[in-house]
Amino acid sequence: MADTAHPELRIDGERLLARIQALHEVSPIDGGGNCRLALTDDDLAGRDLVVTMMRDLGLTVSIDVVGNVVAVRAGHTHTAPVMCGSHIDTVRTGGRYDGNYGVLAGLEIIETLDTAGVITKRPLAVGFFTDEEGARFAPDMLGSLVYVGGLAVEEALDTVAIDGARLGDELSRIGYAGSTPCPGVVPHAFVELHVEQGPVLELEGVTIGAVESVQGISWTELTIVGQSNHAGTTPMRLRHDAGYAAASVAVFVRGLAGELGGNQVATVGACDLHPNLVNVVAGRAVLTVDLRNTSEDGLREAERRLFGFLDELAVTEGVTITKRTLARFEPVIFDPGVVDLVEQTALAQGHTVRRMPSGAGHDAQMLARVCPTAMVFVPSAKGLSHNPAEHTEPADLEAGANVLLHVMLALAAE
Amino acid sequence: MADTAHPELRIDGERLLARIQALHEVSPIDGGGNCRLALTDDDLAGRDLVVTMMRDLGLTVSIDVVGNVVAVRAGHTHTAPVMCGSHIDTVRTGGRYDGNYGVLAGLEIIETLDTAGVITKRPLAVGFFTDEEGARFAPDMLGSLVYVGGLAVEEALDTVAIDGARLGDELSRIGYAGSTPCPGVVPHAFVELHVEQGPVLELEGVTIGAVESVQGISWTELTIVGQSNHAGTTPMRLRHDAGYAAASVAVFVRGLAGELGGNQVATVGACDLHPNLVNVVAGRAVLTVDLRNTSEDGLREAERRLFGFLDELAVTEGVTITKRTLARFEPVIFDPGVVDLVEQTALAQGHTVRRMPSGAGHDAQMLARVCPTAMVFVPSAKGLSHNPAEHTEPADLEAGANVLLHVMLALAAE
Repeated sequence: MADTAHPELRIDGERLLARIQALHEVSPIDGGGNCRLALTDDDLAGRDLVVTMMRDLGLTVSIDVVGNVVAVRAGHTHTAPVMCGSHIDTVRTGGRYDGNYGVLAGLEIIETLDTAGVITKRPLAVGFFTDEEGARFAPDMLGSLVYVGGLAVEEALDTVAIDGARLGDELSRIGYAGSTPCPGVVPHAFVELHVEQGPVLELEGVTIGAVESVQGISWTELTIVGQSNHAGTTPMRLRHDAGYAAASVAVFVRGLAGELGGNQVATVGACDLHPNLVNVVAGRAVLTVDLRNTSEDGLREAERRLFGFLDELAVTEGVTITKRTLARFEPVIFDPGVVDLVEQTALAQGHTVRRMPSGAGHDAQMLARVCPTAMVFVPSAKGLSHNPAEHTEPADLEAGANVLLHVMLALAAE
Repeated sequence: MADTAHPELRIDGERLLARIQALHEVSPIDGGGNCRLALTDDDLAGRDLVVTMMRDLGLTVSIDVVGNVVAVRAGHTHTAPVMCGSHIDTVRTGGRYDGNYGVLAGLEIIETLDTAGVITKRPLAVGFFTDEEGARFAPDMLGSLVYVGGLAVEEALDTVAIDGARLGDELSRIGYAGSTPCPGVVPHAFVELHVEQGPVLELEGVTIGAVESVQGISWTELTIVGQSNHAGTTPMRLRHDAGYAAASVAVFVRGLAGELGGNQVATVGACDLHPNLVNVVAGRAVLTVDLRNTSEDGLREAERRLFGFLDELAVTEGVTITKRTLARFEPVIFDPGVVDLVEQTALAQGHTVRRMPSGAGHDAQMLARVCPTAMVFVPSAKGLSHNPAEHTEPADLEAGANVLLHVMLALAAE
């Protein structure tokens, strides 16, 4: 059978669900989720299971120097492979689909092609990247960042975990310090299938998201110092209230997101007051501001307005405000051709589809640095994410995998 | 010498300071303050020192069933005494003047009268009340509340401390479970001399505050429940952000105080977000609102507007808001005759004086239930209170004690 399109081809939904269930059972936690922090024994057990699945499918498995695992299925030609994949590490209270779904759907696609006897022109590759979540080692998306040459290997190996362990030591300990060098093979294209982790698809009744960008992120920690004082005896006009100033910031950023519109989101998710007592004007507040926008210009404008507001606030309330950047990533724009392909493939299969940005970070944004890349989203029930109750309907899981199958077939024919 | 006015009479400032220093040295903490939580061994040491001072002055000391201590100096008549006093317990990070000053100034006045050979018509009494701060046993002003019959003795004795101890057991343990019954003797009048605990007198360059009222207090704890969600993937329009709602409350009450004006103050001093992470929309917030006003009508209006705002906010943000009353006291208006007497006495001694409310609670507000009562305030440097750095200038301490002296002489002549 040739590497032409096989429009009738479909993955086996039951087999996909069985693979997801098997990986879930490696390290289940209460509520139906998983805890596989990167390079722990639980992660090792998950890795060993997935590598076994890869080898059982006859794939050529390579492990690189930071533990990224790539399994290749040969094509008719020795050209750059079309790659899919994601990650199998999780946060402490992870769901069973986040990351895992994209990896296991890739393996299901391989088995589907094997069963149908389809050999593609280009090789196909399925990978999983080390420490995508960043829940044990910062930064997140570490493995894919090293894979594309964005972080030196030695620096990555010297990364220290929240529990004090060195990444390189942990890789060796669990037997995943491989020999394949980084940066890794540059794929012909990369497509990541993932659950949305947000509520948009479900709310709009759409099955497939054709992800055209990843929002840029600006995280700033603010420390506001005012004057702690008696809440009864201190007249309002004499206050330097760090708690009020912090609240003003949270209210301001809500308004800012409304004014800027588009994809701008803004959140004050963390705030600590000191001394945090009912009858004491807070003398100090530490809070975080999370700004995201798919447009770098938009993100810069949001930062400009926020910082301008802080300058005014410091004067009017008589407080000092210190800023510390916790994270700053420019938005990533995916390849329009691959995004179009995702959209057209979904429509051809009779699915509802919408183009959309990703609000969360993904390995795909790193691969986008080196090759044409896009993502496929399927709905997350109630938008729940990083939660054991994370859920996607089996029909949606199957739909996403079938879209990925035909996107990869099309790319592999190029 | 008769019980007529002795306008030339002045207390001994050095002796007053020495008494304050002696009590400070009983349980000093870093920074110059004291930690004498009610009915602890440190409180016992303070009590024993002050009782010794009382006995050394030949006063008749009685200890009542909740540990309030009253020392009486006989007058020419067996009429109701003119009483002054305060408390000697402190918060964990207490200053050396809060409470102690009013008690020790009373003893200094007794010694001044002894030295001058002045016998008043009415007896004079100096008292200190158990657990005014409420830092170990709730509520605060417990001893004076029982003294005036506002709380049953058995209920007071069964009060459990933050460390689990029963008040009655602690009284017995330290030997201050007295036999004098409560409610106690109703004084002819009560005057409490106290540091301001706020910045008003210092800022206005005024030496004496003639305290005409104590602000009413309304403390409400709010629990706001929204939906915890990903700060990147959740569109603004779909958020139910408990953190934003909490911030809105803090900003609203600041505006409320401005609109209502007068003595209205409003504070959100405590706020806890959950899960309190940079990239997660808060699903739950617990915060406190402290409203105070010298007018009960004003305080009710502030509560009405706050609660109306909360109802609107719950709808617009799609959150639930649960209210819990932590404290609610009506304002206390002191006796205009005694307030006038304080003001006139201060003026006659050449001091600047202003009538003012007290923003903090004091034993005097309990005594005001049973007899004509007022307070005398002296400046607190920078308004610092419940802080080891609490400070009042010696000249101001002396001025306040001299005002108290002549106010008591005038009242004792009635």
